[in-house]
Amino acid sequence: MIQKDPGIKEKKKRIVCIGGGTGTFVTLKGLKTYNQHLSAIVSMSDSGGSNKRIRDEFGLLPTSDLRQCIVALSDENGGVGLLRKLFMYRFEKGEGISGMTFGNLFMAALTDIVGTQKDAIEQTSKILRIKGSVIPVSFTDTNLIATYEDGTVEKEEHFIDEPRHDGTLKITNISLSPPAEANPKAVEEILKADLIVIGPGDLFTSILPNLIIKGIHEALEKTKGKIVYVLNLMTKYGQTYNFTASDHLKTLEAYIGPCVQTILVNTSPIPQYALEVYDKYHEQPIVDDLDTQKKIRVVRKDLISTHIIQKSNTDTLVRSLIRHDSDKLGKALIECMET
Amino acid sequence: MIQKDPGIKEKKKRIVCIGGGTGTFVTLKGLKTYNQHLSAIVSMSDSGGSNKRIRDEFGLLPTSDLRQCIVALSDENGGVGLLRKLFMYRFEKGEGISGMTFGNLFMAALTDIVGTQKDAIEQTSKILRIKGSVIPVSFTDTNLIATYEDGTVEKEEHFIDEPRHDGTLKITNISLSPPAEANPKAVEEILKADLIVIGPGDLFTSILPNLIIKGIHEALEKTKGKIVYVLNLMTKYGQTYNFTASDHLKTLEAYIGPCVQTILVNTSPIPQYALEVYDKYHEQPIVDDLDTQKKIRVVRKDLISTHIIQKSNTDTLVRSLIRHDSDKLGKALIECMET
Repeated sequence: MIQKDPGIKEKKKRIVCIGGGTGTFVTLKGLKTYNQHLSAIVSMSDSGGSNKRIRDEFGLLPTSDLRQCIVALSDENGGVGLLRKLFMYRFEKGEGISGMTFGNLFMAALTDIVGTQKDAIEQTSKILRIKGSVIPVSFTDTNLIATYEDGTVEKEEHFIDEPRHDGTLKITNISLSPPAEANPKAVEEILKADLIVIGPGDLFTSILPNLIIKGIHEALEKTKGKIVYVLNLMTKYGQTYNFTASDHLKTLEAYIGPCVQTILVNTSPIPQYALEVYDKYHEQPIVDDLDTQKKIRVVRKDLISTHIIQKSNTDTLVRSLIRHDSDKLGKALIECMET
Repeated sequence: MIQKDPGIKEKKKRIVCIGGGTGTFVTLKGLKTYNQHLSAIVSMSDSGGSNKRIRDEFGLLPTSDLRQCIVALSDENGGVGLLRKLFMYRFEKGEGISGMTFGNLFMAALTDIVGTQKDAIEQTSKILRIKGSVIPVSFTDTNLIATYEDGTVEKEEHFIDEPRHDGTLKITNISLSPPAEANPKAVEEILKADLIVIGPGDLFTSILPNLIIKGIHEALEKTKGKIVYVLNLMTKYGQTYNFTASDHLKTLEAYIGPCVQTILVNTSPIPQYALEVYDKYHEQPIVDDLDTQKKIRVVRKDLISTHIIQKSNTDTLVRSLIRHDSDKLGKALIECMET
């Protein structure tokens, strides 16, 4: 098995994580320590909060997910460690500034200086000395559109993420308008990968916005890399209300076909305190009904972090109380790749 | 004479520049190449623009002058070079953000992270790998007060800098309210210095706000270091209207006594184009009437930059068309120290 500090020089494996939110942050942090060739493919259709302002007022593509992935992969030591903290910082003071993340302002200013957002991402990655690469799934300025079972249509990502309607409604279709073109670098990384990690993350607002892009699901079908889907811990009101594990998988396959080879499922119980908080938001642990799955390998492990997140000055929602554990998840993924 | 790249290892000279604005920026840039022990003592009573918001909304001391000095002394290469550009960047987009400098927001966020503005300045200096140190003259939250010959009183620095009254009026007194306490580090540097450079810079808003602080002028009287006053190139409407060279010196001495040993005066003519622009603002080249000065050594040199500043995305006023030349000024100051 790949060791955290291999004694013998061996060819690095190529690992690609697809997502964008906190789940991808945790995954990247866990995989970073294995010193492999690591890339994050990040959704670019966020439209809430700081991202909304970056899009509307600066005319740029959203950067919050990029920022989180850059932070996950960045050097945590010395002066760079402090820059990393700055990058996660959200202003609490200043009219028109409060609520903005420093990292988003950093990338907006840098884009203006170096000319393109693509170059700004590259330069930021250098400044924060990231181990790996952070790849926007697309450079198309696009919006996520969800259609619900009652015919309702939501046209912005943050209204899908934080629904303003009955959150028990099922999403019957998700699409991008205008259709986005895949970043060729993202396609290339998927094709060359030894391991592709999908999730954890919000199915309709972090995972699928990547996968529905023309070029991405085709690459997933073609690649020889193993595809592992990391199941979330909890259902999400407004997106996956009452979804079981197989509901998640079926939804994924409806968009990308049957290319997932392994599904990684947490087995540890969620602490009672957290359950009670989630319950207020109509969110429950995802029921594992995957025994009937034949074609797909189901790997069950303790993957949960014992740290209860109380509050956070990053992009994390206050109700994101429990998470996958970076170390446990990283180790499980490396094992999935090798066996 | 000290060489830019000395072959023999010799003890570094201690040079202290007092001021804060563009003049100090130019001086530091010129002296930086001599690889001596360089410090900038920076005024902390600015109240305009980005500084006003830093003070009013973030509850911090003003940082624009600090920021300029940090940039002047920072490493210009590699990733740090890009951070340096970011540090000078002023946002042109974003409601509530447009007009703010990135560097000020950087220091506000960092202060929140590390706890004090003092530590934030130190950390910023490390991140930008500055050659030397940037020292706030005081940590007292104070405002500059000017009294004019007609009895008018202005209580904020930016109204003195950009007068809202008749700019031909003489300032009869300048003070700080509340009185500020000198930063012990500033006093220490002055006492240990081999050379102390006062100016160039706006006499009443950049130079004197440092010198009138209790502890600073006492240190100037005590120090064994040579004190050189770099005369400005032009008069300034609202501050030094129609002032000759000896008017400048007399004003300075009224506040700090006769401790200036050398006055450095530019001899090159100001280009006609620039003269015409300045004339619209009632500003003229400072007339050199220093022949009568006996006790003070007058050094006359070509000190002017041949670059005409057209516009700038930094703190520079649009009408700051001509400047001292960094290299010429640096060389002249090193000569003043050694002879």
